[in-house]
Amino acid sequence: MTDDREGHPATGASAPHDGAATIDRFCGACQRTVLAEIRHILGTQRSNHQELDELILDYPLRAAKGLRPALCIATARALGSSEQAVITSAAVVELLHNAFLIHDDVEDESQFRRGELTLQRAHGLPIAVNVADGMFALALMALLDNLELLGLRAALAIFRQIVDMLWTTVGGQALELGWIRANTWQFADYRAAYEDLVVRKTAVYSFVVPTQIACVAASAAPEHAEALAAFARHVGVAFQIADDLLNLRDDTAGYGKELLGDLWEGKRTLILLHALHTERDPEIVREALAILGRRRPASDELRSELAEVAAVVDDLHASGHLDGVGRTTVLAALRRAWRARPERDVKTPADVRALADLIERHGSTEFASSVARDHVRAAEQALASCHRGLASGDARDFLFALPAYVVERLR
Amino acid sequence: MTDDREGHPATGASAPHDGAATIDRFCGACQRTVLAEIRHILGTQRSNHQELDELILDYPLRAAKGLRPALCIATARALGSSEQAVITSAAVVELLHNAFLIHDDVEDESQFRRGELTLQRAHGLPIAVNVADGMFALALMALLDNLELLGLRAALAIFRQIVDMLWTTVGGQALELGWIRANTWQFADYRAAYEDLVVRKTAVYSFVVPTQIACVAASAAPEHAEALAAFARHVGVAFQIADDLLNLRDDTAGYGKELLGDLWEGKRTLILLHALHTERDPEIVREALAILGRRRPASDELRSELAEVAAVVDDLHASGHLDGVGRTTVLAALRRAWRARPERDVKTPADVRALADLIERHGSTEFASSVARDHVRAAEQALASCHRGLASGDARDFLFALPAYVVERLR
Repeated sequence: MTDDREGHPATGASAPHDGAATIDRFCGACQRTVLAEIRHILGTQRSNHQELDELILDYPLRAAKGLRPALCIATARALGSSEQAVITSAAVVELLHNAFLIHDDVEDESQFRRGELTLQRAHGLPIAVNVADGMFALALMALLDNLELLGLRAALAIFRQIVDMLWTTVGGQALELGWIRANTWQFADYRAAYEDLVVRKTAVYSFVVPTQIACVAASAAPEHAEALAAFARHVGVAFQIADDLLNLRDDTAGYGKELLGDLWEGKRTLILLHALHTERDPEIVREALAILGRRRPASDELRSELAEVAAVVDDLHASGHLDGVGRTTVLAALRRAWRARPERDVKTPADVRALADLIERHGSTEFASSVARDHVRAAEQALASCHRGLASGDARDFLFALPAYVVERLR
Repeated sequence: MTDDREGHPATGASAPHDGAATIDRFCGACQRTVLAEIRHILGTQRSNHQELDELILDYPLRAAKGLRPALCIATARALGSSEQAVITSAAVVELLHNAFLIHDDVEDESQFRRGELTLQRAHGLPIAVNVADGMFALALMALLDNLELLGLRAALAIFRQIVDMLWTTVGGQALELGWIRANTWQFADYRAAYEDLVVRKTAVYSFVVPTQIACVAASAAPEHAEALAAFARHVGVAFQIADDLLNLRDDTAGYGKELLGDLWEGKRTLILLHALHTERDPEIVREALAILGRRRPASDELRSELAEVAAVVDDLHASGHLDGVGRTTVLAALRRAWRARPERDVKTPADVRALADLIERHGSTEFASSVARDHVRAAEQALASCHRGLASGDARDFLFALPAYVVERLR
């Protein structure tokens, strides 16, 4: 390849065939640099608290792809800038992502993250919340270091992007939490509602901001920055749909989260929204909404303990210590105690099965897959439109391979 | 008063007698301006989410003194600057303080804050965590506005102070959480350990940073900035000791938190540390440490439900449906169910009473009061040392009245 501006026409047809290998190679190299940078940032500050330092590194050190910082570095390099110019910002993006993960895990009471116990399961809620606060503080301190690295104008522009991103992400989270509280599932245009949520909650921080930081550092032309933002938005939506689809798979290999967790949680996925909006029987919709209005049960530790008490009561009845009236009465009292728990009106495995059946009946996973592929194509087109501004090489290859890659995980 | 540099000699003897009225008047005026500024900040951003906007204002709108922003404004004005120069920073300090309160309430699982339900009790943990994130984001956006208001150098200096403060506060919190996890209560110098914790966890963000922001805005002489920082550190320690003392009072009027909550939580107070280090009987110390190693019980909703089941069992026994062996067996099973809860090995009211007795026996509240008064005197001396840099008027009166005021609540 001698011409560094050719090779990826608008169709994306001549993108590297082995996209996954391209992505993996690039991410692997970036991840080492980014982790070294995070350690450097942590080393230059002194928290005077070894455990805090260690726990700030806990999630970032767990096996993960590191797509976000890799996207930032790839965009910067494809635009003709250096990795060095964005390495601090890329590390900040990764730190903030991991802080969001801690908050997500706390909010969802999740048990596992990347195949290990979540921070709040391993160390308790107070430490988890404080570690996330530490990551926010550390990220902000690192951004101030950009002043020396990039000069005032660029450093402040990146700062503003990060701060606006925090606000946007919080707004997206508030939108979803409002829907959860009101059990809102029906929309005039459910696809638009879903895409709007995903852009605000995930795509902006995970994909748009990493590219836009790179555009600032590389002084990209406004039309290139706009095209890259559109590219990133579409990749982000495709990524989230793929993530939702993976959650429904029977196969947990390579997926560190809980299977069907989204159905237990009642997460607004395009899949579930499609099933609800396609179902024509109002009675079935009503029942599905009732299920979705139930909370997921907390730990069933106590439930099994009460079941043990019930077994003791049965034994006593069988051995003649307790008569039939007594047995009925004690069991009724146990049921009342169970129902009085805050976890009453919770989803059952049968509820979750009913939701999975509804999804299957309406071909909702196929629908969601096809929408994800629409976004892959739109992303590829947006990238092709600024193709002439991107230098050839592994960084540009990464960008062209990314859209297909984020849904590739489905095959 | 014609001479604006006289009237408050090093002894503080001629400070206004009615300090509480001085403080209340000044805080009241500041609080109105600060709340208007927070509303203004929120209004210039668009979260597109009305509930998020409302919940961001929830804690700030609850009845509170607003000491932190008032201290910032008073220091700026006493140094010859204007309220306008620090109003945004003062609003940021208040926003961050309220975000910390949300995190504290989440971490401590507190029920009440300023006499109303805590945010996570009223709206659930996910919304509470997200609202605090929103307040952080909003605070950062407001700090960027300082660039226009104060110019680059001052705005960046204030930014760095706020960011360093976040890191310091997180470090202080980590220190305390580490002590809680390891049940650490014994120190070579417990007073120094306590003061170090309180400075990092509370005094820096509540008192030192508000004065130092004002010093930046007013371009204060370095020696004045140092004296004001020392003043603020001593006020902060006195404030925290007074807060701890209030928590032990029988009288909850004017105190929106839970009575004896610190003993239930096992908070490291100077009072409790004094009692433990003064007690000479190792057996009593051992028992107190065992109590402090127990967690506070969660809501006892379930306990009462299980008590109801036990009552049913007793009734059945009395009416002949259940024999004595059966009764003993069912009650034992219920006790096992109770103990199997995550809340096993919790503090009892008798435990908390034993701690309160230990404190009383050793005169630990009197000791803590005398240390608080030491800090009041040290604060007054530090302020007097930069007296000549402070213009007379209600702002300076506020500063001179503050040290005595923070312990005044005890009388």
